[in-house]
Amino acid sequence: MAERFKIPGLLGELAAEFAGTMILILFGVGVVAQVAGAGIGDHDSIAWSWGLGVTLGVYVAARVSGAHLNPAVTIALAVFKGFEWRKVAPYSLAQFLGAFVAALLVRWNYTEVLHAADPGLTIKTQGVFSTLPGNGTLPVGEWGAFRDQIIGTAILLFLILAITDSANTAPLANLAPVVIGLLVVAIGMAWGTNAGYAINPARDFGPRLASFLTGYGGAMRDQTGYLYFWIPIVAPIIGGLIGAGLYQALIGRFLPSEAPQEPGEIPTQRDNVEATHG
Amino acid sequence: MAERFKIPGLLGELAAEFAGTMILILFGVGVVAQVAGAGIGDHDSIAWSWGLGVTLGVYVAARVSGAHLNPAVTIALAVFKGFEWRKVAPYSLAQFLGAFVAALLVRWNYTEVLHAADPGLTIKTQGVFSTLPGNGTLPVGEWGAFRDQIIGTAILLFLILAITDSANTAPLANLAPVVIGLLVVAIGMAWGTNAGYAINPARDFGPRLASFLTGYGGAMRDQTGYLYFWIPIVAPIIGGLIGAGLYQALIGRFLPSEAPQEPGEIPTQRDNVEATHG
Amino acid sequence: MAERFKIPGLLGELAAEFAGTMILILFGVGVVAQVAGAGIGDHDSIAWSWGLGVTLGVYVAARVSGAHLNPAVTIALAVFKGFEWRKVAPYSLAQFLGAFVAALLVRWNYTEVLHAADPGLTIKTQGVFSTLPGNGTLPVGEWGAFRDQIIGTAILLFLILAITDSANTAPLANLAPVVIGLLVVAIGMAWGTNAGYAINPARDFGPRLASFLTGYGGAMRDQTGYLYFWIPIVAPIIGGLIGAGLYQALIGRFLPSEAPQEPGEIPTQRDNVEATHG
Amino acid sequence: MAERFKIPGLLGELAAEFAGTMILILFGVGVVAQVAGAGIGDHDSIAWSWGLGVTLGVYVAARVSGAHLNPAVTIALAVFKGFEWRKVAPYSLAQFLGAFVAALLVRWNYTEVLHAADPGLTIKTQGVFSTLPGNGTLPVGEWGAFRDQIIGTAILLFLILAITDSANTAPLANLAPVVIGLLVVAIGMAWGTNAGYAINPARDFGPRLASFLTGYGGAMRDQTGYLYFWIPIVAPIIGGLIGAGLYQALIGRFLPSEAPQEPGEIPTQRDNVEATHG
Repeated sequence: MAERFKIPGLLGELAAEFAGTMILILFGVGVVAQVAGAGIGDHDSIAWSWGLGVTLGVYVAARVSGAHLNPAVTIALAVFKGFEWRKVAPYSLAQFLGAFVAALLVRWNYTEVLHAADPGLTIKTQGVFSTLPGNGTLPVGEWGAFRDQIIGTAILLFLILAITDSANTAPLANLAPVVIGLLVVAIGMAWGTNAGYAINPARDFGPRLASFLTGYGGAMRDQTGYLYFWIPIVAPIIGGLIGAGLYQALIGRFLPSEAPQEPGEIPTQRDNVEATHG
Repeated sequence: MAERFKIPGLLGELAAEFAGTMILILFGVGVVAQVAGAGIGDHDSIAWSWGLGVTLGVYVAARVSGAHLNPAVTIALAVFKGFEWRKVAPYSLAQFLGAFVAALLVRWNYTEVLHAADPGLTIKTQGVFSTLPGNGTLPVGEWGAFRDQIIGTAILLFLILAITDSANTAPLANLAPVVIGLLVVAIGMAWGTNAGYAINPARDFGPRLASFLTGYGGAMRDQTGYLYFWIPIVAPIIGGLIGAGLYQALIGRFLPSEAPQEPGEIPTQRDNVEATHG
Repeated sequence: MAERFKIPGLLGELAAEFAGTMILILFGVGVVAQVAGAGIGDHDSIAWSWGLGVTLGVYVAARVSGAHLNPAVTIALAVFKGFEWRKVAPYSLAQFLGAFVAALLVRWNYTEVLHAADPGLTIKTQGVFSTLPGNGTLPVGEWGAFRDQIIGTAILLFLILAITDSANTAPLANLAPVVIGLLVVAIGMAWGTNAGYAINPARDFGPRLASFLTGYGGAMRDQTGYLYFWIPIVAPIIGGLIGAGLYQALIGRFLPSEAPQEPGEIPTQRDNVEATHG
Repeated sequence: MAERFKIPGLLGELAAEFAGTMILILFGVGVVAQVAGAGIGDHDSIAWSWGLGVTLGVYVAARVSGAHLNPAVTIALAVFKGFEWRKVAPYSLAQFLGAFVAALLVRWNYTEVLHAADPGLTIKTQGVFSTLPGNGTLPVGEWGAFRDQIIGTAILLFLILAITDSANTAPLANLAPVVIGLLVVAIGMAWGTNAGYAINPARDFGPRLASFLTGYGGAMRDQTGYLYFWIPIVAPIIGGLIGAGLYQALIGRFLPSEAPQEPGEIPTQRDNVEATHG
């Protein structure tokens, strides 16, 4: 968005990425704390709240920063959509910080409940904050989690490009954030078995570090003791590039070219009406 | 909205706040009566029905009064968005009355079911009407509820400002009420553990008083006997101010200024088309 | 809608009311057959499928007939919105017929499952087709059901008028049917305890007659043997009038008058753009 | 859509049908693997994820190919809406291939979980990939499944025509894909008992073949040993034609004719604004 108006400077963009990712994690880690810590809700609640957290985080940040909220998105937009490379590291850092601060807030607010459910702060509630192969209990190893995160993030990026592509049939009236949230709801329902659908390095490592620093000594490792933390960082980045590339190959190059598109832009009603009158 | 058309007078605004909040509570307290009293539905039903009650209440009141439906919203809009201070007390009173009347209707309609499930009208079903620390059963005390209500209402106001900010990417086509309802669905799923997500002094105290006057003698106290009723009044007001302030600090000041915004206004398609042609 | 274009004649309007109500019941009675007959899904499924059935039925009939799909709606629109009285009886009959045919289809398709779950076709699965006080099991009598249906249908009509009122903030872009469906989802979650949320004489009596004629000999009576069938016919009509009247009293008369409104019309994007350019 | 812009050629259309159907099946077969294989989620998750898969698949393919994603849709549009017959076989083949490849991906990713839940790859988890009469356990035979698939697909096509008919009240702002997804959610909740709501020959046979070739030797047969695979191919095609014909008979011929409609087109905001200014 910023490209079309007075650029508010990188500071504003980083504040927006920080705030949007913070909102995402307040709902995402919050719902797992409520379901897994307090026993209120079920897996459907988890899928819906993560998805709605994405919708709401995008509404926060869309105009100022483009609302990536995810380093895998930022990197894929840099490779395929011309997003400036100099901003990739600052954006990613702001996303990590937003996720980290949000997880500290959840950690603080749910203190009594988490300590009651798991006094030793073990792997039993570690999954409230960060992901595990097979969600810590199913017979899925690191390789199963690795390939799952590649596929899951490829689906995510393929569809983010489709839903925000004004040369395709992107939702108008500023409603793309709702559909992007529904995409994440569906990923949670269908692609959450092998690795807890991290699909976002900031979503996983920010809360992982927050829990590690507040009593979860095992947070960097999985149920087998393997130093797992790098998988939900590396695999989503690979998967995002694959998914964005596939969208270009299967759909993007066949689209009519009349409607110009900004990198990472969410189409608005206003854009559309302007185009018609221009 | 009223500012842009012929002002219908404060009477109409108060009628709209009364009616909108009544609708909100008919669905919100109604669903808890159905789930906790009759055993029909689960926590997901509770989260969805409260959120949809907000959506529907906003559609009722938006044009006439701006659809605050919540004293914490009214006060935050007065501090940060220029809503007239002389209207804050009348709006809040109308919201309390709407919630009170709606709770009486639920209390009356669910008489047989509530008396069958809890003949003594004890703390067992008191939570149908008003909130409790840890929902009456979890090991969360008054402090856990207090800080939770500050955080939860800060999230609410931060996002209400984002979703209704026409300088940001607010939903058009009069669909902001749907997204605001989804916001409350997500709060119910992720921030309902410590204090039953009151996040609205009128939502909590109106039904609390209605149940107190109709047989729930303990309604002002929590499970420990503590006189709890003031916490879901005071903490949401504090939290709302924090959340609205943070939105201004992290997002509001970085937004481009070309699209003027009315206090508490929900952007409409019409506004947008007018702006384009103006 | 018909008033604004070439009137297709009453035949088309009746075909649309028949088809729209048929769609509503195919999803509504269908989901209860699936949940109560086959054990697939839960009360949330029931609430969602009834609501989505309304959304889809309205999309079928909106342009041709206005998509009342409910005699309580038709009568309330005749009293408060100038809908022609001469059409009230034909509309209601078409709605009953649509519901009756749809229930026969469900009855036929779910034959094996219903006979396996309830070989005698007793009150155990009678609730698949028509409503019962306290859903057949809770301690709610006929009076509890009667007052519940008045309140529930008052809520329905109050909100239908709000959501379709182009002088209020009605959803644009032809999305009012989605919000009306969400309204019925919420009624199912919060107002389904005492009388199974009939809130529509055609929805209840059409399937009741269909089940009565296909083996459910007790379908006109409730669990106490009381001849119950008239309550979900009479109470919704009374409640609809109360709700529509309250909307006019609390909201309608305070709305600005600049946007003219057709009886029962669902506002469209086109209407709005025309108004702006007119 | 293609008819209104520069035609990208059949290659692009087939790539879009392939990609859109692949997305549909990644979410549809994926969610059943997660629920039935790993025990995460419930029938509501299944209904939502299949429906959201349709929404997302349509957003992928709508502009390039019209997003049929289903041979029953393609054939019905050829018979009733002028879709070119020469494209019916290529479209159907691309849809089958997309479903086949997606099912292979799910089969690969969920290997550990499926082998743990069902080491012999028997009928116990065969339903993850393809449908069975009575979902493999209920007392519904082949005839019950056959008539169910006719009715279910008739409902699907009746409503697809309604929701995409710009002479009716089709959703604008490019939001028809969301409503079509909700339609499939509702079919899953109300019409999934007798035959697992295949309602799409490509959705059923693509994953059936994928599972057959990867260890599920019984995939072409049902629980009685009957060679079942043809029923979810033939019955949906018949049902689709019936549903589309009924829409024309009950609604289509009564609609005002002023708004011209392209075959299979999803109306956009842009179309509408153009029409107003034209």
